[in-house]
Amino acid sequence: MLFTDIDILDENLDYQAHQWVGVKDGTIDYIGDAAPENAADYGEVYDGCGRLLMPALYNAHTHLPMTLLRGYAENVPLQEWLNNLVWPFEGKMTPEDNYWATKLALAEMARYGSVSASDMYYATDERVQAVGEAHMKMNVCESVLYFEPKPFVEYPMCEKMERIVKQYHGAQDGRIRVDYNIHAEYTSNPITCTDIGKVAKEAGLPIHIHISETKSEHEECKGRHDGLTPVQYFESIGVFDVPVIAAHCVWVDDKDIEILAKRGATVALNPASNMKLASGFAPVQKLLDAGVNVALGTDGMASNNNHDLFQDMYLMGTIYKGHELDPAIISPKQVIAAATRGGALAQGREDCGLVKVGMKADLTVLDTTGASWCPMTNPEVNIVFSGHGSDVVLTMCDGEVVYRDGVFPGIDLEQVKAEVSARTKRIISEL
Amino acid sequence: MLFTDIDILDENLDYQAHQWVGVKDGTIDYIGDAAPENAADYGEVYDGCGRLLMPALYNAHTHLPMTLLRGYAENVPLQEWLNNLVWPFEGKMTPEDNYWATKLALAEMARYGSVSASDMYYATDERVQAVGEAHMKMNVCESVLYFEPKPFVEYPMCEKMERIVKQYHGAQDGRIRVDYNIHAEYTSNPITCTDIGKVAKEAGLPIHIHISETKSEHEECKGRHDGLTPVQYFESIGVFDVPVIAAHCVWVDDKDIEILAKRGATVALNPASNMKLASGFAPVQKLLDAGVNVALGTDGMASNNNHDLFQDMYLMGTIYKGHELDPAIISPKQVIAAATRGGALAQGREDCGLVKVGMKADLTVLDTTGASWCPMTNPEVNIVFSGHGSDVVLTMCDGEVVYRDGVFPGIDLEQVKAEVSARTKRIISEL
Repeated sequence: MLFTDIDILDENLDYQAHQWVGVKDGTIDYIGDAAPENAADYGEVYDGCGRLLMPALYNAHTHLPMTLLRGYAENVPLQEWLNNLVWPFEGKMTPEDNYWATKLALAEMARYGSVSASDMYYATDERVQAVGEAHMKMNVCESVLYFEPKPFVEYPMCEKMERIVKQYHGAQDGRIRVDYNIHAEYTSNPITCTDIGKVAKEAGLPIHIHISETKSEHEECKGRHDGLTPVQYFESIGVFDVPVIAAHCVWVDDKDIEILAKRGATVALNPASNMKLASGFAPVQKLLDAGVNVALGTDGMASNNNHDLFQDMYLMGTIYKGHELDPAIISPKQVIAAATRGGALAQGREDCGLVKVGMKADLTVLDTTGASWCPMTNPEVNIVFSGHGSDVVLTMCDGEVVYRDGVFPGIDLEQVKAEVSARTKRIISEL
Repeated sequence: MLFTDIDILDENLDYQAHQWVGVKDGTIDYIGDAAPENAADYGEVYDGCGRLLMPALYNAHTHLPMTLLRGYAENVPLQEWLNNLVWPFEGKMTPEDNYWATKLALAEMARYGSVSASDMYYATDERVQAVGEAHMKMNVCESVLYFEPKPFVEYPMCEKMERIVKQYHGAQDGRIRVDYNIHAEYTSNPITCTDIGKVAKEAGLPIHIHISETKSEHEECKGRHDGLTPVQYFESIGVFDVPVIAAHCVWVDDKDIEILAKRGATVALNPASNMKLASGFAPVQKLLDAGVNVALGTDGMASNNNHDLFQDMYLMGTIYKGHELDPAIISPKQVIAAATRGGALAQGREDCGLVKVGMKADLTVLDTTGASWCPMTNPEVNIVFSGHGSDVVLTMCDGEVVYRDGVFPGIDLEQVKAEVSARTKRIISEL
């Protein structure tokens, strides 16, 4: 595809009007302010008038199959939410339920410009199948709770992970990657976690962990581990020897931030979820100042309740200003970087997340002709604060269109919605 | 128009599937679960399949002409924002600039389901003209700063207000109403404000005021007025003898809340603006518990940056939970009520803001076929947390369509955008 005369956010996230962008073999192979010499060699020509092309978004923390729970567990205290509503519901979910819910979530992601998810859940086979059909990307992370203090090899998950890594890491032309999982400090133990750190290091794979999401989790960890916070505790047992995707990090302290920066971890911020579940405000500006790779996630649909990462961008750009009582923190560019390149790096996708020649053609095209985009005094600001995820008119993953003008080439949305609605009703009736 | 087989939010904001809703002479004249006997008497029949009909939204605090400033003054400390950026820009705005910017803002409002604005600004004639052409509603509030301690009659505004009230209050079939204005405590003095309270009381009109938006404003007022907060000070000089639209109320205390409730004031919350300008978090649940009428506003476009009130609904439903660390506060219904009936009441529009026979046909129709609406386990939750303002496919004001499927019957959007873009460039070039 050749995008003609289109506005873009370049590799520095600077706005450049009237550019030509060529995509061949899944890769960006031309960017310039005039048509390439070989313009006739491209397949489709896409008229970029009134459009803005930017990197696609990478959702750095999700539980896609939880989309079945959308609107189910609402406005209740956290423990009631988890114990009485979420866990019983999840207990009734079958692998097929996970498949259909993932498919719906992927449609929603593509609709709002995201191409990839770091997805922590069960039913990896079904999730990988759904992603393949949608021609999108996923860092699959098979979740398990490690309450019993025994070596990782004694958990059936050890063998399962061996199979998952072998079968899926790098599958689908590299669109599938595998992350190891530690659910959280309070649902695991040091013996197993130490082993997982070693196994992941040997495999050269990241570990995706919930870290310091709630104040009580953060404080109770200190009580259990000689005053060590979750970050400090996990570092002490070698878990940070591999890249960690640390989801939430709402309550991390200055020492934690230093460790996260030094160890090249990613903080996957989940502003919508942190507000809706009342977890609190992460120290975002401090994380950015320390050089930590900050990415954005939607978290699961019981706490958001949609996969529109533009909404989380809006939140990232606003709520921390309100909390810190400082309107000058967190720039729009830092927000866009978190949702794009920050997420790609969290997923180990060095060749993704920038509009730059040689990068994978993961692209989002916005319709900027709506009233909210006018005037266009500062396009980056308009992207974060004025535009909407619904302004996305085309989402491309590895050079293939995964959403365009209401159509999902790899997803039969009507069928998926019918399946999800029926399966949600079935589960609720079983409870 | 007759809406057939459409899902609705009824007068209690309860979801009712498969309803018929009839609109005649600008009023809702039928609601039922079957077609009315006189179905053939209606003009157009609107197929409600996959659609949800709810009250239109009423934006309770705006400065519509500031839409010219969208994306202009960003990520800077408040005083720099106001003194170095906003005020100099506003100083260059002509009445015609105000007209075109209002037109653009109205398009944006209609696009996202709002029909009415409580709009505090200058250039009332131009704003009223724009609203009339768009066939929408406005509580116009002509703004002025009263620094000099002299009677209201000695201000030219006194005469001007007499003319504005006479000419515009109740104009356009009641779609235009007039509110008096006190900009804020720190930009006025007790002598003039006392007079304005009396004049407004005589006229039977509300007063629209910025109250306790920032901590410094709140605290400095106490210093100037024997420890009285802005609410307490204004009450002490009789300003609360009329219905007050108190914009922001971020820093109000328990005594203030008692006064606001007792005096039948409206608090126009501006969550987006309060976050972006780092003003802080209003005590929303306390206001609701005290029985204060809470409404929602977008504020001006230098601090939001769009007129999508669904986004402010999302913020109202999430950020105060995060701030109070309590996920059980502020229900989705309370959020929807604030954006609809709460706003209508703030504007003195008793016959607006509910889907109920006899009420004005101010209606918003949402397309609920998108992926984000599935499953529909709890429709009110989906409206607040999953859907988007962009799901609006039809906005109706007094029975007339003001937005439908990308078309604005009363606004030439391309012309308006061209005017706004050119005028913004001109102003910036003059600075």
